[in-house]
Amino acid sequence: MIPARVIERKRDGHAIEPGVLAEFLDAYLRGEVPDYQMSAFLMAAYLRGLDDAETDVLVLRMLESGRTLDLSALPGPRVDKHSTGGVGDKVSLALAPLVAALDVFVPMMAGRGLGHTTGTLDKLEAIPGFTTDVSLARFVEILRRVGCAMIGQTAEIAPLDKRLYALRDVTGTVSAIPLLAASIMSKKLAEGLDGLLLDVKVGAGAFIPEEERAHELARKMVAIGSARGLRTVALLTAMDRPLGHAIGNGLETAEAISCLRGDGPEDLRELVLTQAGEMLRLGYPDVAPEEARRRAERGLDSGEALERFRTLVEAQGGDARVIDEPERLKTAAVRRDVVTDRAGVVLEVGPRALGEGVIALGGGRTMMHQPIHPGVGFEVLVAPGDAVDPGTRIGVVHARDEAGGRAGEEVLRGTVRLGEAGEAAPPPLALVGRRIAAG
Amino acid sequence: MIPARVIERKRDGHAIEPGVLAEFLDAYLRGEVPDYQMSAFLMAAYLRGLDDAETDVLVLRMLESGRTLDLSALPGPRVDKHSTGGVGDKVSLALAPLVAALDVFVPMMAGRGLGHTTGTLDKLEAIPGFTTDVSLARFVEILRRVGCAMIGQTAEIAPLDKRLYALRDVTGTVSAIPLLAASIMSKKLAEGLDGLLLDVKVGAGAFIPEEERAHELARKMVAIGSARGLRTVALLTAMDRPLGHAIGNGLETAEAISCLRGDGPEDLRELVLTQAGEMLRLGYPDVAPEEARRRAERGLDSGEALERFRTLVEAQGGDARVIDEPERLKTAAVRRDVVTDRAGVVLEVGPRALGEGVIALGGGRTMMHQPIHPGVGFEVLVAPGDAVDPGTRIGVVHARDEAGGRAGEEVLRGTVRLGEAGEAAPPPLALVGRRIAAG
Repeated sequence: MIPARVIERKRDGHAIEPGVLAEFLDAYLRGEVPDYQMSAFLMAAYLRGLDDAETDVLVLRMLESGRTLDLSALPGPRVDKHSTGGVGDKVSLALAPLVAALDVFVPMMAGRGLGHTTGTLDKLEAIPGFTTDVSLARFVEILRRVGCAMIGQTAEIAPLDKRLYALRDVTGTVSAIPLLAASIMSKKLAEGLDGLLLDVKVGAGAFIPEEERAHELARKMVAIGSARGLRTVALLTAMDRPLGHAIGNGLETAEAISCLRGDGPEDLRELVLTQAGEMLRLGYPDVAPEEARRRAERGLDSGEALERFRTLVEAQGGDARVIDEPERLKTAAVRRDVVTDRAGVVLEVGPRALGEGVIALGGGRTMMHQPIHPGVGFEVLVAPGDAVDPGTRIGVVHARDEAGGRAGEEVLRGTVRLGEAGEAAPPPLALVGRRIAAG
Repeated sequence: MIPARVIERKRDGHAIEPGVLAEFLDAYLRGEVPDYQMSAFLMAAYLRGLDDAETDVLVLRMLESGRTLDLSALPGPRVDKHSTGGVGDKVSLALAPLVAALDVFVPMMAGRGLGHTTGTLDKLEAIPGFTTDVSLARFVEILRRVGCAMIGQTAEIAPLDKRLYALRDVTGTVSAIPLLAASIMSKKLAEGLDGLLLDVKVGAGAFIPEEERAHELARKMVAIGSARGLRTVALLTAMDRPLGHAIGNGLETAEAISCLRGDGPEDLRELVLTQAGEMLRLGYPDVAPEEARRRAERGLDSGEALERFRTLVEAQGGDARVIDEPERLKTAAVRRDVVTDRAGVVLEVGPRALGEGVIALGGGRTMMHQPIHPGVGFEVLVAPGDAVDPGTRIGVVHARDEAGGRAGEEVLRGTVRLGEAGEAAPPPLALVGRRIAAG
C-alpha cells in the first residue's frame, strides 16, 4: 500500500480495493499516513465518492478502532436516535425520557453544537450542575436506573472517526454523504443497540438541504445499519424553517421541558410523538403503529416522561428545580422584543441565519473547546403564512449585553422575510416526510 | 480569510477571489495554514481547476516568495529552456552549450529525475567531479564566462513552489495543469530571462500523455510568460517513444556528447537544432527562422558547441576528459546484449516502462535524496517500424550486477512489442508538433 497511489486512484474516480483501503486507514491511525495525505484523500473521496463496499470498509475500520458497548444485560431493548442536525432541534431532550418511560432503554451519545446548529450536550449543560462528562461505567449505571442517559462520544468509541472528523471539520470535507454516513453509523454501531432511528433533516437549515441528497444519506445509513443486524429507520423531516420557537441552548432546553409538560409548540410535540412511536416499534417490532402512537401520547400527557427527565437530571448532577422553575436555567442578561414596523405576511423564516446568529451572540463555537454562553438566542414568534401588523412582536432576542441585543435584532429582522398582503408564502415542507427502512 | 471556507469554495467549483487566494498562500508560507489544509485545497484545485486569474495569483505568490535574479548586466540576451520531462530526453546537455555558442546566455536551472524520467542534474553528475551545487554568485560568474551554466533550484528561488511541490508529490496532485504551469513558470520568471522555450512532451512517456491536455498546459504557460513580459514559445514534441537510443543518466550524457560531436541519433540532433533555432530567435527576434536554423547547424557542426560544453564541464568542476574518453563517465559493471528469438516488426517501444526500468536498476529515486547509480540504463537499438530476425540485437542493458542485467532484459523485452511481418506499427507522433506562441 503506497499512500500516494491510493490517493491518485481515488482522485481518478476508481474504487479502492477493500484490503488496500483498510490498510490505508489503519496506517493513518498508527500515524504512518500523515494528516496531509489523509486530507487529500478525503477531498478526492468528497468529489469522486465512495461506493458501498468502500463505505463499509470505512465503517468497519472506525468501529473496530475502538470499544463496542455490551448492553445485553439490560432488561429491555436498546434504541437510540440520531439527528443530522437542525436549527431549534431540541427533540432529543424530550424524546429520550419519553421513550424510556415506554420501557425502551435509550443510551444516547450526543454531540456539541456543529456549524450553525446547537448540540444536545450544550443544551443539557444550560441546566446548572448537569454533566455529560461521565465514564462509560457510570453511563451504563444511569441507563439501567433511569432508562436513558446522555453523554458525548468518549475516547474509547470509534477513535478513527474522531480523528477523521476533526480533520474533515477544517478541510471542507464534512458533508460528503458516504463520509457522513460512515461517521454517524460507526458511532451508533458501537453503542450495542437493538434499534436506531435517524432523523435526517431537509431544507435550508439542514447540513444537506437538497431532498434527494438527504434521501441518499438516509438510504446509505439504513443500509449500513441493516447490513450489520441493527434495525434502522430513517425519517426525512422539515428544516426549511426552525423547529419550535426557541433557538439557543438554554431557551431550547426550556422549550423541551414545556413539551414534556404537554405544552410547547405543536410542531415540536408532533415530532417528539412521531419519533417516540418509531423508537418504541424499533424496540418492540410487534407493536402496531397506531398503538405505538397512543402509548407515546399517554407517556407524554400522563407526566411520566417529565418524571423520567427529572430523574435523569438528578442522576447526571443537574439542578432538577429547573423543571418547575425554568428561570433557574442559565439565562442571558438582556431580553429585547422585536416588533414589525409594517403590515405584511411572513413569507419565510430563514433557519441558517438564525443558527449563525446564535453563534454570533456567543452561544456557539468558532473554534474547538471554546466556552459558550448558554442563555443567548432567539424566540421566533411568527411562522411562514402569518399576517403581521405594525407593532406585532415577531420575536425576542436574548443577549449578553445591549450591543448583542441590537445585533440580534438585525439578524432576526433579516431572517423574517415579509411580503405584501396577498403574496403567498412558498409551500412548506411536510414536517415528517419520507420514511426509509430496510428491505 | 478562513482557510476551511477557501477550501470549501474551491471544492464547490467556485473561483477564489485573488486577494483571498493570495492571503491563503501567504498564510501557508508563514506556517499558519497547515499542510493538511493545503493538500485538501490542492486536491480540490486538481479536480475543480484554477482559472487564469487564480493561476496568476499562484505564480505571483510563488515568484515573490523568493529572490529574482537580475542578469541584465550580461552582454547579451538570456534565454532558458524547460522540458516537461520525457524518457531519453538529454536535449538540454547539448542544447545549452550550442545556444551559448550562438551568443545567447543560457542560465539553466534544471531538475533531478522525477517519476519515470531522469533529470539533467543527475545526468551531469555522471561526469566525475561535476557539481551542480554552486552558489548563485558563482552561477552568474560561470554564466558570464562560459555563456551557460547549470544548477538546481536553490532555496532562494520560489520557496513557496518548493514547499508546494514536495506536498503535491506525495498527495497525488502533481499533474494538474494549472499547478504544473504555475510551478514551472514561477521558477523561470525568477531567472531574469528575456526568452523561454518550453518543450512540452506528448504521448505515453509524457507526464501528460494526451495531446489536448498537453496543448492546454503549453497555452497556459505561454500566457503566463507573455503576461509578465517574457517572450515565451512552446513546442509540443513526441514522447510516444524514447528520444534517441540511450536511457539512463550516464548513457544519456554520452549520447549528448555524441550529438555535440555531430554524431548520435537523428531524432536527438533534429530536436537540438530545432530548439536551438527557437532559442536564438527568442534572444534575437529579428533573426529569420531559416537563418536561425543555419546558425544552429553551423554551431553544432563546427565543434563550437562541443568546446563550450568542455568549458562548462571544467567550470563546474568536472573531468573534461570524458568528452574524448567517454569510458571515463561513471559506468555500470554489467553489460548485457538482448537479442530477439523470432522474426517480426517492431510495433512499439514503450517509453514509460523503460523509464521505470531505469529506477528499478537503481538509476532513479523512490524517495527524496536517495543516492543513485549513474551508470545503469538501457540502449534501445530498434524503433517502431523496424523489421527484426531471430538473433537481431534489440538493445543493451547496463546494470550493477547479473541479477540486474536479467531483470533489465525482462523490462526491455516487455517494452519492445513485436508484431507479425506485414502488421503495421501505429503511426508515430511528429517529432516536433504544434508550436504555441503569444498573440
